[in-house]
Amino acid sequence: MPGNTFGEAFRVTTFGESHGPAVGCVIDGCPPGFPLDLAAVQAQLARRRPGQSKLVTPRDEEDKVEALSGLDRESGRTLGTPIALIVRNADQRSSSYAEWHHVYRPSHADFGYDAKYGIRAWEGGGRSSARETVGRVAAGAVAEQLLAARFPGYAAAAWVERVHTIDARDAIDALHVTRAQVDATPTRCPHPASATAIEAAILAAKAKGDSLGGFVRLLLHGVPPGLGEPVFDKLDALLAQAMLSLPACKAVEFGSGMSAADSTGLQHNDQYVWIDGRMTTASNRSGGIQGGISNGMAVDLRLAFKPTATVLKPQASADDAGNNVELQAKGRHDPCVLPRAVPIVEAMANLVVIDCWLRQRGQVGEPWPGLGGPLRKP
Amino acid sequence: MPGNTFGEAFRVTTFGESHGPAVGCVIDGCPPGFPLDLAAVQAQLARRRPGQSKLVTPRDEEDKVEALSGLDRESGRTLGTPIALIVRNADQRSSSYAEWHHVYRPSHADFGYDAKYGIRAWEGGGRSSARETVGRVAAGAVAEQLLAARFPGYAAAAWVERVHTIDARDAIDALHVTRAQVDATPTRCPHPASATAIEAAILAAKAKGDSLGGFVRLLLHGVPPGLGEPVFDKLDALLAQAMLSLPACKAVEFGSGMSAADSTGLQHNDQYVWIDGRMTTASNRSGGIQGGISNGMAVDLRLAFKPTATVLKPQASADDAGNNVELQAKGRHDPCVLPRAVPIVEAMANLVVIDCWLRQRGQVGEPWPGLGGPLRKP
Amino acid sequence: MPGNTFGEAFRVTTFGESHGPAVGCVIDGCPPGFPLDLAAVQAQLARRRPGQSKLVTPRDEEDKVEALSGLDRESGRTLGTPIALIVRNADQRSSSYAEWHHVYRPSHADFGYDAKYGIRAWEGGGRSSARETVGRVAAGAVAEQLLAARFPGYAAAAWVERVHTIDARDAIDALHVTRAQVDATPTRCPHPASATAIEAAILAAKAKGDSLGGFVRLLLHGVPPGLGEPVFDKLDALLAQAMLSLPACKAVEFGSGMSAADSTGLQHNDQYVWIDGRMTTASNRSGGIQGGISNGMAVDLRLAFKPTATVLKPQASADDAGNNVELQAKGRHDPCVLPRAVPIVEAMANLVVIDCWLRQRGQVGEPWPGLGGPLRKP
Amino acid sequence: MPGNTFGEAFRVTTFGESHGPAVGCVIDGCPPGFPLDLAAVQAQLARRRPGQSKLVTPRDEEDKVEALSGLDRESGRTLGTPIALIVRNADQRSSSYAEWHHVYRPSHADFGYDAKYGIRAWEGGGRSSARETVGRVAAGAVAEQLLAARFPGYAAAAWVERVHTIDARDAIDALHVTRAQVDATPTRCPHPASATAIEAAILAAKAKGDSLGGFVRLLLHGVPPGLGEPVFDKLDALLAQAMLSLPACKAVEFGSGMSAADSTGLQHNDQYVWIDGRMTTASNRSGGIQGGISNGMAVDLRLAFKPTATVLKPQASADDAGNNVELQAKGRHDPCVLPRAVPIVEAMANLVVIDCWLRQRGQVGEPWPGLGGPLRKP
Repeated sequence: MPGNTFGEAFRVTTFGESHGPAVGCVIDGCPPGFPLDLAAVQAQLARRRPGQSKLVTPRDEEDKVEALSGLDRESGRTLGTPIALIVRNADQRSSSYAEWHHVYRPSHADFGYDAKYGIRAWEGGGRSSARETVGRVAAGAVAEQLLAARFPGYAAAAWVERVHTIDARDAIDALHVTRAQVDATPTRCPHPASATAIEAAILAAKAKGDSLGGFVRLLLHGVPPGLGEPVFDKLDALLAQAMLSLPACKAVEFGSGMSAADSTGLQHNDQYVWIDGRMTTASNRSGGIQGGISNGMAVDLRLAFKPTATVLKPQASADDAGNNVELQAKGRHDPCVLPRAVPIVEAMANLVVIDCWLRQRGQVGEPWPGLGGPLRKP
Repeated sequence: MPGNTFGEAFRVTTFGESHGPAVGCVIDGCPPGFPLDLAAVQAQLARRRPGQSKLVTPRDEEDKVEALSGLDRESGRTLGTPIALIVRNADQRSSSYAEWHHVYRPSHADFGYDAKYGIRAWEGGGRSSARETVGRVAAGAVAEQLLAARFPGYAAAAWVERVHTIDARDAIDALHVTRAQVDATPTRCPHPASATAIEAAILAAKAKGDSLGGFVRLLLHGVPPGLGEPVFDKLDALLAQAMLSLPACKAVEFGSGMSAADSTGLQHNDQYVWIDGRMTTASNRSGGIQGGISNGMAVDLRLAFKPTATVLKPQASADDAGNNVELQAKGRHDPCVLPRAVPIVEAMANLVVIDCWLRQRGQVGEPWPGLGGPLRKP
Repeated sequence: MPGNTFGEAFRVTTFGESHGPAVGCVIDGCPPGFPLDLAAVQAQLARRRPGQSKLVTPRDEEDKVEALSGLDRESGRTLGTPIALIVRNADQRSSSYAEWHHVYRPSHADFGYDAKYGIRAWEGGGRSSARETVGRVAAGAVAEQLLAARFPGYAAAAWVERVHTIDARDAIDALHVTRAQVDATPTRCPHPASATAIEAAILAAKAKGDSLGGFVRLLLHGVPPGLGEPVFDKLDALLAQAMLSLPACKAVEFGSGMSAADSTGLQHNDQYVWIDGRMTTASNRSGGIQGGISNGMAVDLRLAFKPTATVLKPQASADDAGNNVELQAKGRHDPCVLPRAVPIVEAMANLVVIDCWLRQRGQVGEPWPGLGGPLRKP
Repeated sequence: MPGNTFGEAFRVTTFGESHGPAVGCVIDGCPPGFPLDLAAVQAQLARRRPGQSKLVTPRDEEDKVEALSGLDRESGRTLGTPIALIVRNADQRSSSYAEWHHVYRPSHADFGYDAKYGIRAWEGGGRSSARETVGRVAAGAVAEQLLAARFPGYAAAAWVERVHTIDARDAIDALHVTRAQVDATPTRCPHPASATAIEAAILAAKAKGDSLGGFVRLLLHGVPPGLGEPVFDKLDALLAQAMLSLPACKAVEFGSGMSAADSTGLQHNDQYVWIDGRMTTASNRSGGIQGGISNGMAVDLRLAFKPTATVLKPQASADDAGNNVELQAKGRHDPCVLPRAVPIVEAMANLVVIDCWLRQRGQVGEPWPGLGGPLRKP
C-alpha cells in the first residue's frame, strides 16, 4: 500500500533521505544464477552522480555502492534472494538549508509532505530529493544486465533532446543513437552543435541563479513482442507511471503522442508487413506498443522535465506558521536536471521491461524471441 | 501480477471480452455503510454507452448494470465486502468480424495479443476492446459518490478540448466547466461553437470511413492536500498510469506539461501564499501536484487520444499465417473516441483519488480537510 | 489491501453474500490456451453443494456455474484474460433468520462484522457464510486441471480422517487414498467402517440439534521440488493461510506437526537418499516441505475443524442493543462441516500450488520436473 | 510476487544471508510522527541474539542495529518514509561449513534451494538461516511500540510452554504471564520448576549432539474488535502464515485448536455476554477470533517447533552429485530453538496486528476502541 516499491515480479523498494545516513534499494525477485557485474552498476551510478560536470550540482558524492545481500560470496552470482544495495550519503551540508526549515519552497514538495505526514525531513528535500533515485539507478543497472543477457539487441537509449529553446529533435537520428554519443558531452545531447548550445544555455542560467527544463527522448530496442499486461498494467501505462514518478517530470508521450491528433486514422495507422518471414510495421506511430502490448518495434517515448524548482534568486513564499515570507535559496542544485535524468530514465525503463518479462514468463512462458521470429500461430 | 486490477486500497478488477457473455468489475475495499446510488452508476454508464448519438458507434447496448454482491438487501448500503457489478453484452454481431479472424488490424492490439498469449478473442477486439471500460466506469461512479460525500467540492470534470484541428482550449474557462456544459452536445466539448465544428468534422470523417483524434482535458476539484504516495505511486504517476491504460491514449501532461520547458525556473515556479489563513499558490503550473503529492489546487491534466484505429477503407495488413493481405474493415466503430472517453477519464481519475485517500487514511489518518484549512503544524 | 483476493500470480477474487444475488470469483492470471473443462468445474461444485446427503444442510442449491469471460467462444480455451465465474443464489429463506437480525450468534462472525464494518448482511451470515467458498471451489477446480496437465501425477487428495471421537487415522493408508474411495460415502471418510460410525454420529448429533467437528487430512502428490517462496511465502506458510482462511478451521499441522516435539532431532530428521538416480527422503516427517520449499515428497497436512457453531438448541447470547438474550436458532445448517470441507480444502491447496508454480516460473523458469529427475547441478 | 515482503499496509521486506555482509529490513508504511525508541528495538534484538546463554548457539553476534533512513535527524520521529534497519554479520566462521558445501543436510532447506534456484548460499544455510529473522524482530519491535501507544493494554506475550516431554501448560496461568516472568530464565518458560527441567533437558541433548523441539504459546492482549480481513486475510489466516513462515515451525492452533473436535457444538460455542455495558464472551475457545475477525478477547495461539535439524552426530545424507554420503555436522547451532523463538513469534504477531489495524483504518476508519466500549450500533 505505501508507494516505495515498484514492480510486481522484479520488485524494487527504495529507501533513504537526502541527508540521512544512506540511500539504497532492495531488489526482490531477481532471477538466480546471474553473474552480476557490480562494476557496471557502479558505472551507471557514476552517470547519475552529482559533481560530474559544471552543469550539475557540485555536491560531492562518491556514491560507492555496497551490496549487503543476495550475491554468492564466491562467484558473485545472484542467489534469487533479495539484493540490498546501499550508498552512504557523504557530503551533507545541512546548514545550507537552515533558513528553509519552516518555509515551503515554491514548486517543491515541502508543503505536500507536511500536509501528508505532518513532519518532513526538510534538509535538501528529504525523501523528495532526487537523491532517492540512487536506488532506482542501481536497481535499473541490475535489470539492464539481465535484459541484455536474455534479449540480444536489448538496449535502453535515452538522451537530452531539448533544453529550453534548443531543440535537437530533427537533427538526431533517433533509431541509431548510442550511449557513447550521449555521454560524449556533459549535456548528454548526442547532437554536437546542440550540445554546445545547451551547455552555454545552462551555464548562463546558472550564472543568473535561474534554471532550465527540456525533453528527454527514450528508445527501447530489442523488446520482444508480447510484453505488457492488459488492461491496467499496459506497457505504456507502466512506463508512464515510471516516468511521472521521477522528480520534475511533467509529461510523457508515446510514438506520435501529443501530435497523434494532427492525423486522421488513415494517416496514423501502422500497417503490419511480413518481410522475409519477419513481422514488422511500415511505420511506428504507435511507438512500439499497441493495446498496451509491445509489438517488437522500438518503444519510443518523450518526456518533459520542468526547470529545476530551486533557483538562487529571492522568491515570494510562505512558511509553516501562516506567514508570507521572502525566500532566498542557498545550497547546491542542478541548474538543469536533464543531463542527470538520462541514466535515471533508462533505469526506470529497464525496471518496467524486466518486470513485464518476468510476469509474461510466469503466466505464459518465455516471450516470443523477437520481432520476426517464426510465427507463433501455426 | 496479472494486470486486470487497479488500486491498492480501493481495488477494482475488471473482466470481460467484447463479445463474451458479460463485462463487469469487482470492487474490493469499498468503505462500508455508504448509501450507494445505483441509478447514478447507471447514469454514468449511459454517458459511456454506445449508440447515444450519431457521433459514436451504433452498437446498441442498454448496458444495464446488475449488482451481484456487496450491498445490503434492505438499505442498499455498502457492506464493506466486494461489490460485483456486471453488464451483459447484448448486440453482438460477430459475423461482422469474420474476415478479420486471422488478420492483424493496423494499430490494433491483435498482433500483440497473439504474440503474448498465442490465442485471442478476435471478435471486436476481445479484451482489448473499449467495451472493457464498462467495468471502469461503473467502479469510478461508485468512487465518485464516496468522494463527493467525503470531500465537499470534489468533482472530476473532463471534456473534449480539441478534435483534430479544432482546438477550443483558449475559448474555455477551464476552472469553471460544468458537467451540464460538457453534456450539452454529443461532442462533449463545452464551447458551443467548437462543438458545432467538431460535430461536423467527425461526421465528415465518418462519411469518408476515416477517424479523428484529439485532446481531453481533466480538472479535479476539491482534492485535499496530502494525497499521493512517495515515491513510485505519486499522484501524477498513478494518474499517468490510469490514463495511459485507456485505449487510444498516447500522451498525458500535468499542469504546464509539454510546455514546461518553454519557461525558466523563475518563470515557472508556483509561489505559496497565505490568503486569509488559507494556503494557496499564486499560479498552478504544477497542476495541483508537487513532488507527487496534491497541494490542494486543482489537479490539471491533458490527454491525447489517437484517431480510432478502425477505419472503413481498405488497408494493407498481414495475417497470422505469414501473408501480406488487404484488409477491408467492416463492423461498427466510433469515428472519434473522444466524446465517450470523457466519462471513462473521469472514472479513472476517481479511482486514483479514492485509492490515494484510503491509503492516506490507513497510514496517517484522515487527510487535511482541504486547501486553506487550519495549518497542520502548530 | 482488502482481503478478498488470494494468490499473486494466479489471483482469485471471490465475491458474494449468502443471501445476495450471486456468489462467484474472478481468476486473473490463468495461463492461456488451456482447454478448460467446465463440466469438471461443475463436478467439483457438486461435491461442495448443499443438499447432497442427509449429513449436510438441506438448503437446495443447484450451484450451476456460468462463465462470464476469459474463455474462447469457439474452443473453450482460456484466453489469458480474467475468468469470471458466477453461481446464482436460489434457495434463500431469509425469513428463517429474522429473529437473529440483531443477535450475535455464539462463535459466529456476527459481532466481528458489526465491530469491523458497523453493518452486516445478517441473513445466513452474509459474507462470512461458507457459501462464499463456492468461488474458491470453482477457481480451485480450474487450477486443478492446469496442474494435472502440467505435472503428471499431481493430485490433491483430502478426506475426513476423524469426526468427534471416531478416528480413522491408523486405519487409512494415507499415501494411496483415491477420490473414489473418499466419495464412496457421504461422510468422505475412505475407511468404510469408520464412515459408517461417522454417519451414525453425525445423524445422532443432528437429531439432538447438536454438531460435530473433526480432522481433514490432505496429501498433495506430484508437487515438484522447488515450489514455495522464501521467506514469508513459504509453501507451508501459504497453505497455512489458505486453510485457516476456511470457516471453522482451528489448526493446521504439517508432517509430524504437533507431535514433532515428541522426537529428538536425531529421531526426527529426514535423510536424503539417491535411489536409482532419483532423490528421495527415507522418511517424510517434514511433510514434503523443508525451509518452506517443496522437496518432491508428498505434502502432508492435517486440519482441525470445530463443530458447527449453529446448533438448534437455545443458547445464551447478546444482541446489538446491549441486552443479554436467549437465542433459539432456526434455519438450515450442517451438523458437521467435514464432508463438504473436503473439496474446499482441495481447492485451496490447488490455488496455493498453482500460484507457487507460476511464481517460480516467473523468477526462475519451469520447475524441476519432479522428484528424481536428473540432478540440476552438474 | 517474490516472498520476502510481509504485510500490505505496514510492509516489511527482509534481506540478508547468514554469512553475507548484513541482514536487515525495510519497513514501508510506518505511520509518521512517532517517537521511535531505537534502544527498545535493540533490546528486542538482544532477546533474539545468539550467544545469550548456554542454551543457544555460541555464535557471537552483537547484532547492533543501524537505522539508515526514515527517521527525523533531530527528533528521531518516524517520517512516514521507509525505515531501513541493518545489522552487520560479524562472527562468520564459514570454514566450519566447508564439508557441507555439496551435501544436502537432512531436514534442512539445502536441497530445496538448489531445486528452486540452482544455486544456494551454502554457508550456514544462507537465506534459510534463522539469522534472517533479525529483520523480522527489528520490524516487529517498531510495530510493538506503535501498537502499545495506540491501544492501551496491547501486549504480545509469548513463552516456551513445552520442550520435548516437559510440558508446563497446566502449570501456567496463561492470561497473566508477563515478559519479566518469561525472561527470568534462559529457557523463556515462565514456570520455574519446568524451566529448571527444560534447561537440564536441553543441556543433556546438547551434550549428546542431539536437539529438542516443543511448543510456544502466544497470547495477544488488547487487540480491538474488528481486526482481520475477510475472507482470505482473516486474522487467524495471517497469523498462521506468519508463524508457519518461521524456521522449524510445524503446526499452529487457535483457541481450542486441535482439541476442538473433542467437543460438540453445544459444548464448544462461546456465548456473548454484556457485562456492565461491556461485551465479552463467557469462554474463549475461539481464541479471540471468529469468522477471521478479532472479537476483543485475548488472541490465543500455540505453535509447535520441531527439534533443530542440525545435530552433531553422523547422519546418512546425499550430495549434489548423486552420491549417498555420511554427513558429520560441525559448526554452531541451537540444541533447541524454542527460547530464541519467543521474541520472533512476538515480532510476527506484532506485524500481523499492525497491518490489520492500518488496513482497517484505511477502509473503515479507526477501529473500535476495545472490548466493552460503547456499542457501535445505536
